[in-house]
Amino acid sequence: MKRRTLMTPGPSPVPSFVREALSQEIIHHRTDEFRQILKEVNERLKEVFCTRNPVVTFASSGTGAMEAAVSNFFSKGDRVVAICGGKFGERWAEIAKSYSLDVIEVKVEWGLSASPQELAKILDDNKPVKGVLTTLCETSTATVFDIEAIGKVTREKGALLVVDAISGLGQEVFHPDKWAVDVVVAGSQKGLMLPPGLAFVSVSSRAQEAIKSSNLPKYYFDLDKALKGSQKNDTPFTPAVALIVGLNRSLEAIKQEGIEARCKKFAKMAKACRLAATALGLEIFSQRPSNSVTAICAPQTIKSSDIVKKLRKEFGLSIAGGQGPVKDKIFRIAHMGWINEQDLIMCFSLLEKALLDLGHKFELGVSLSRLEEVIYG
Amino acid sequence: MKRRTLMTPGPSPVPSFVREALSQEIIHHRTDEFRQILKEVNERLKEVFCTRNPVVTFASSGTGAMEAAVSNFFSKGDRVVAICGGKFGERWAEIAKSYSLDVIEVKVEWGLSASPQELAKILDDNKPVKGVLTTLCETSTATVFDIEAIGKVTREKGALLVVDAISGLGQEVFHPDKWAVDVVVAGSQKGLMLPPGLAFVSVSSRAQEAIKSSNLPKYYFDLDKALKGSQKNDTPFTPAVALIVGLNRSLEAIKQEGIEARCKKFAKMAKACRLAATALGLEIFSQRPSNSVTAICAPQTIKSSDIVKKLRKEFGLSIAGGQGPVKDKIFRIAHMGWINEQDLIMCFSLLEKALLDLGHKFELGVSLSRLEEVIYG
Repeated sequence: MKRRTLMTPGPSPVPSFVREALSQEIIHHRTDEFRQILKEVNERLKEVFCTRNPVVTFASSGTGAMEAAVSNFFSKGDRVVAICGGKFGERWAEIAKSYSLDVIEVKVEWGLSASPQELAKILDDNKPVKGVLTTLCETSTATVFDIEAIGKVTREKGALLVVDAISGLGQEVFHPDKWAVDVVVAGSQKGLMLPPGLAFVSVSSRAQEAIKSSNLPKYYFDLDKALKGSQKNDTPFTPAVALIVGLNRSLEAIKQEGIEARCKKFAKMAKACRLAATALGLEIFSQRPSNSVTAICAPQTIKSSDIVKKLRKEFGLSIAGGQGPVKDKIFRIAHMGWINEQDLIMCFSLLEKALLDLGHKFELGVSLSRLEEVIYG
Repeated sequence: MKRRTLMTPGPSPVPSFVREALSQEIIHHRTDEFRQILKEVNERLKEVFCTRNPVVTFASSGTGAMEAAVSNFFSKGDRVVAICGGKFGERWAEIAKSYSLDVIEVKVEWGLSASPQELAKILDDNKPVKGVLTTLCETSTATVFDIEAIGKVTREKGALLVVDAISGLGQEVFHPDKWAVDVVVAGSQKGLMLPPGLAFVSVSSRAQEAIKSSNLPKYYFDLDKALKGSQKNDTPFTPAVALIVGLNRSLEAIKQEGIEARCKKFAKMAKACRLAATALGLEIFSQRPSNSVTAICAPQTIKSSDIVKKLRKEFGLSIAGGQGPVKDKIFRIAHMGWINEQDLIMCFSLLEKALLDLGHKFELGVSLSRLEEVIYG
């Protein structure tokens, strides 16, 4: 009878009105009815992506769309820069290597943002670089990168900019068209309030040109086919009908609230989360913290994984631990999608209880007052 | 207020108890709770696949799993045979070509089954052939191939046998282990009574050996990673949680009814369907008709697409038309997954009404009597 609460940075909770849409009877995908849904979805996705570029949808996890963003724009031996400041930056490097690209890995200390100056130098010293692969919100470190500055440098040097916005989309301020971003990748299970299973790619006209000269093999993730299908509100292969019907419902709700308003809301929640953690005597891990998720350093005497386990086991609350080099050092609280301010209050209350049990010293209730000051202030 | 009925060969209808499972609150995938579900799913999939080999699940359409079955077992320039007797056989050839394999396309007239003797000769004349890619039930022609005979020949000649069972799984009698099938590909939206969005690959130990020497690029569909994850009831990338929860429910129901009993039921429905069509003076298109879907030739004076449109527009009943060379010639009625005998009665009643309106001559009700004779006989 334990209530379960999901505050992980993907999957994030799915509202009941979207779950109702998911459970509707299946319709056939080659019908006017489904094409109308896909038309609405395609238009609404552009609004959430803040782009005029077409956005295509795949039945896959976000990683599939990342692969599409490598295999469609480059050719064997092409030089690309992968900015690696966490697990998902490293994934870019892995994917690009698996396609035999010439990958320059720019290592960024976990928790820091990539330096545009350093990137400019790397692009100058390693000509010609065909593409830069980076991340809007690096989920593993809860860090948001300065995509505007990265975009300026990348465009100046003539490379294609590919951004993994899987956990940042609809959460972080993001203007791909103004910021010279060519390709944006996203997934369904974060800011879009859906179960995992859909992934998205937006493609600029420069990127559409690049497709023509790419010689890497692809079939399921062929963007040329997907873009052509999308123009007719169709898909090359059977789409994930139920998830797309759910997506249309969630996009409708997001549009109603407004992207700008949502980004402000999550910025406020993120700020509240940071101040609440600080009030408990804890440090914030990231130097450029995101709106979507906050990484908090555990007290030196406590393993962060013990906090995570305790919250899940005793209170049914799922937050995320650290991965790789920060495995037992940080824990991460998501404030994305359907998670709201009251969830944060509840989460910090349980966090206080867990820390109390684990022997950390602080003034009981202090994080909740701090949250309220920001949220209601 | 029109009632809608889905009798297309994918997507096929999803029962309400599965749709309820789909609409449950999302759980995190890196938890014991989800691993337990994945464990049950992995075991139950083996039963439906009638195999002892591991079966892995991807978030993708069936085509993604077909691509996995090409990119993981072969290397650039490897010679493979693709048996092309319909749209999905042709897809094998397309995928293999996109990975620069040396593809021998064995053309089989649409509606016929592949000849094992011809295959044996081709394998002898074109040594070394590394793999044979074929189809259990070719949905576009409603034809079931003699996989047992194809398996015998392929194993004798030392090639790997890869079978697309997307529309045949759980419907057609199929014993991959006995029949020397190395790799079986399936999808969620046919016999498994789920929405589209999941795809499956079973991998024999011979095929697992072949993975080691493959040099084709892959990342999302990397079977080695997927198999290693599967051993720990885990997935390399975020799984489509909601669909997998639904899958567990549908597999439970399928197990309860029993695979053998279900194959018998669909065989009976397919027979009833063929006799009912014949009673209306119509011809069956396939020379080796499947249990999953029946392709019926339209009367010479009527375009099959007109029958399909009329049924959908006037009565909300979706059946499938013909594709490619048989576009206006055949229509296809599915009897798979959740579709039952009473759906067939309703479908033929509406088909009679449509044919009547379109000017075809027959004795009213004759197809229904024939259905009842087989079903209740």
